This record gives sequence, structure tokens and C-alpha cells, in this order.
Amino acid sequence: MAPTRFDMARIRAAREVIDPLFLDTPQYRCEALEPELRCAVTLKLETANPVRCFKGRGTELVASQLAGPAVCASAGNLGQALAWSARRRGLKVTVVASRSAPAAKLDRIRALGATLELVDGDFDDARERAIALARQYGIRLVEDTLDVETCEGAATIGLELVDSTPAFDAVLIGLGGGAMAAGVGHVLKELAPGVEVICVQPLGAPAMTLSWRERRVVTTEAIDTIADGVAGRCPLPVALDDLLHVVDDAVLVEEASIVAGMRLLFEQAGLVVEPSAALGVAAILEDPARFAGRHVATIVCGGNVDPDAYRRWTA
Amino acid sequence: MAPTRFDMARIRAAREVIDPLFLDTPQYRCEALEPELRCAVTLKLETANPVRCFKGRGTELVASQLAGPAVCASAGNLGQALAWSARRRGLKVTVVASRSAPAAKLDRIRALGATLELVDGDFDDARERAIALARQYGIRLVEDTLDVETCEGAATIGLELVDSTPAFDAVLIGLGGGAMAAGVGHVLKELAPGVEVICVQPLGAPAMTLSWRERRVVTTEAIDTIADGVAGRCPLPVALDDLLHVVDDAVLVEEASIVAGMRLLFEQAGLVVEPSAALGVAAILEDPARFAGRHVATIVCGGNVDPDAYRRWTA
Repeated sequence: MAPTRFDMARIRAAREVIDPLFLDTPQYRCEALEPELRCAVTLKLETANPVRCFKGRGTELVASQLAGPAVCASAGNLGQALAWSARRRGLKVTVVASRSAPAAKLDRIRALGATLELVDGDFDDARERAIALARQYGIRLVEDTLDVETCEGAATIGLELVDSTPAFDAVLIGLGGGAMAAGVGHVLKELAPGVEVICVQPLGAPAMTLSWRERRVVTTEAIDTIADGVAGRCPLPVALDDLLHVVDDAVLVEEASIVAGMRLLFEQAGLVVEPSAALGVAAILEDPARFAGRHVATIVCGGNVDPDAYRRWTA
Repeated sequence: MAPTRFDMARIRAAREVIDPLFLDTPQYRCEALEPELRCAVTLKLETANPVRCFKGRGTELVASQLAGPAVCASAGNLGQALAWSARRRGLKVTVVASRSAPAAKLDRIRALGATLELVDGDFDDARERAIALARQYGIRLVEDTLDVETCEGAATIGLELVDSTPAFDAVLIGLGGGAMAAGVGHVLKELAPGVEVICVQPLGAPAMTLSWRERRVVTTEAIDTIADGVAGRCPLPVALDDLLHVVDDAVLVEEASIVAGMRLLFEQAGLVVEPSAALGVAAILEDPARFAGRHVATIVCGGNVDPDAYRRWTA
């Protein structure tokens, strides 16, 4: 088996720790999307829970092992999920986020009782500040993707995906830091090795995809995408290693395709999704010939959007 | 126990017949709604499945007992669900609907392979035509609410609701013909008799609520509501009998409150819902003092909307 950091027994055991609210999420073929996408499409819906994204799977696992306060950097979703999981266990959490993160995400982090610290810059700036805070106060630093629990929590999505009937040929996974792609990819390579694992990242935030293609860490200078949930400049070497073992392809998509994907998911599937959650549909829209006649699954990984931005995108 | 037409053993057995796609739907407390609604709110989400509404629970049960073709009248959702369940079993279905039903619903009925016949007038006109077709061709007439399976299928929602932790004090159920309200109400009165069962209907389509209040069938002349899924003029006597046994209150809400409820569910919960699915939230918005400090569950029963109408409502 692929020598990632992950372990199938631990991933299966994670299901016992994660609040059932985050497990066994809706998974169904959405035929209304198919005339436009020209392939069979199964949606895995991670938005119908209290934090409107898949991150609760990982933070439940992380928080179950916490004994005291913690700090994390977040693009907005991890912070919500960690705040939710920590509050449930009476633990204190500080979330560091970019001032430019969607207001809806920042508001929910505060509402869930976390201390929110905003920094200028982007996610990687927030990450540096979180590392400094953890050192300064001697508290646990929760690092998305670096902490194996964040990946193995996300990997439980894979356990559910492989139960799909009929089985699908390919899975499209939004790619940011790599926790979801690596975790889910690991499970698929173990249990359904015939499924093509394809990561999708915005052209405007391509660092991990470029790294995967060159098989070495490539960092980028700037980010230019509405897909705030996957916007990083500095891939982690361990995450890249994992991805190199379990991912078959990594593609980049245009902003216009992400918007078109969001609009299609609204109009044909009745789903409010954030830009990162439309990456899979965007990839099909950009390369229909690749997927024509195949059965493709895509993980609708989050639905935290600012309503006004969403109205503009899907108008 | 309340002498309705329903049976708990049959309702429990229904879970074995219904495609798991329609069961164990997301059920979670949605705190983001609570500042505006001033009570704890648990959402039961019936929109994340191939027919984007709860009706699959009933049509799965109906179709499992069909041996040949069938016809039904539908406001749009039952027709989709019956078409889905029948296609899966290789059965032919004719759906009669009003020409004024949402185009999105009618398109999906056709796409699912049913024969669609449109009539002038409203749901009750479609119902007369379906009855005539069944007689003329000697095929099985599937009647929403009248057929006990449509109610007992919907009642499986109740089995899932009572597993809510913490338990809620009241449940708000959109009221049309009464299948969902009677079925879910029956289960709650059996298993959680302390829960207040409240039906919510639009002021512009109040026939069943007026009937419930007067304890006799009251029909109305016309319908004036955007909540197409619950718009009927001619309550069925047996449905009223059931409701009289299991419902604690029935309230009517303004159109503006339904729109406000849809907008709130979009902005704070990230959910695309059809007007009928916002009735519960509308009822809280209209009478916040009644629910203040309580824990209320509401069934988000469908999400089939015409995108353009939805954009107008939630702009």
C-alpha cells in the first residue's frame, strides 16, 4: 500500500469518535446536472451540518485528543469546526485568520465562542501568527494537513464514498493544503484502487498542483481566486509526499469555471456551495471530453459563503 | 393511542423498503438562525436526495406494492418522487399536474421518465383528471394522503426526529394535504407525546387549517400563495380525521413571512428551500413570543424551486 502517513485502522476507528452529525452525509446521483456535464455525477454533500463543511470530521478527532487550549490558523472553515468541537468539550480555542476571509466565516467562528485574531495578509500569514502564538503561550497548535488527524478525519469521507452503488470511475476533490485530497485518496487507493483520484485547484492558487506536478514543493507569490477555502501559497512537504502516493492527476481551473460550477449547482441541484466546493464541477465543465460517459463523484466540501457575494456569483 | 389510520409497526417496517437515500437525513441544530428566531432551532433536511424533497419516503413504499402502471396527481414533488421510485422498478407512471406548477418540477418529472399531463386549474383540478384517467384505463391511482403509504412513508421522518438530542419542545410541519403532518404527528404522539405538534399553512391556501379548527371539512374557492407544494382547496375527510387526533395547533402565515423564511434559510443556513419548506420558520418569525427560549424542530421538506423565482424571493 501507498506509504502515506495514514492508517486504515485509525481511519475506521475515527468514525467512533466523530460526532455522527458529520458522518454518513448525503451521497446521491444528481441527474439534473448531467445534461450539462455529460457524465453521471454523484454528489457527496458535506454542507448539511452545524459548520456547513467537512472539517468537523477532522476537528472532532483532534479535539478528542486535546487536554487543554489550542490555537489554529484557518481560512475560515477549520476555525469554525475546531471552535464547534472544542466548545462541545469545554476547551478554549483561538483561531487566527486573514482579515480578508469571508465575513460569514469569521462571524461564525466568533459565534461559536472561539477567540478570533485577524491578521493582514493571507492564510500563510495567519499560519505564521498561529505558530508564534502557540510558542508564546505554550498551547497546542492544530495544523491543518500537518496534523494527521485532520487528514484521517477527512478520510472517513472515503469510507462512505466506496459504498456508492453503482461504483464510480473517478473522484474529483478540491485541493488546498491537501488534507481532504490525501485522506480520501488514501482510502480510495486502499479500497477502490480502480477509481481515478483527481485533485482540482484554482489557477489563481496553484501552489500544491504545481508542486505535485514537479514532485517538489513549489511556492507562489500571490493568490488570486474567489475559492478562499483552498487558497494557500506554501505547500507542506509531508502533504505533498502523501499526495504523490495517492493522487492520479491534479488539474487547475479558471475562476469563470468555478463561478459556472456554483451557478449550476444552485440551478440544477438546489445547493448553496462555496467556491472551493464547486471545483469538481468546474473541472468537468472545462474538460467534458475527459469525463463523457463516465461516472464521476465529487465532494461538495463546504457551503460557507457571504450571501451577497453568492448572489453576485449566481445571478 | 390516537385512532388514526396509521400503525407503528408498519411505519418501522417501511424503513426496510425505502431506499436508504431517503432515510436518516441531516438533522442538526442550526445556531446561525437563532439570533433572529430567538429560540433553539433543529432543522430536519429533506432536500439532499435525487428528488429534492421528502416524498420519496412515501413513493418508495407505494411503488414497492405496485404490480403495474400507476397515475397520480401532483403539485410537482409527489410526481417526481413517484417517477423516480417507479423507474427504479421498471414501472410506468403518468403524472397529472397543473400547468401553473413550477417549471423546474415539471421538467424533472419528464426527465425521470414519467408521462406528464398538464391541466388548466390547480392541484384539485389535476386530482379530478387523475381519478378519471385511472378509471378510464383501469390503472392504479396513487393518491397523496388518501393512500396510507404516503403518510406512513412520511412518518418515518418522525422516527428519526425523536432520536434528536437534546429533545425538542415543538415541531413545526408544513401543512398541505396532510400526509406529512398526520404521519409525523402520529409518530410523535406515540413516541414523544410531550412535543407540541404545530402545522403551518399559508393564509392564501388555508383549507385544511380552517377544517382542523372547525373540525369539519371546509373547502375554499381559490388559492393565492407562492407555496405551491401545499396549495389545495379540498381537504380529504380521512386526512382531517387523522390530523384532529395528532395535531395540537394549526397556524396560518403571511406570504411575506414565507419569503422572509426562505431568505433567512439561505443567508444563515445556506439552504435553498421551496416556499413550503419555509413555513415553519415563517411561523416563528410571526410569533416569536410563542417560541422564545424553546427548542423547535422544523422539517425542511423540499427544495424544488425555479431558480429565477428563487432569486427574486431571496434577493
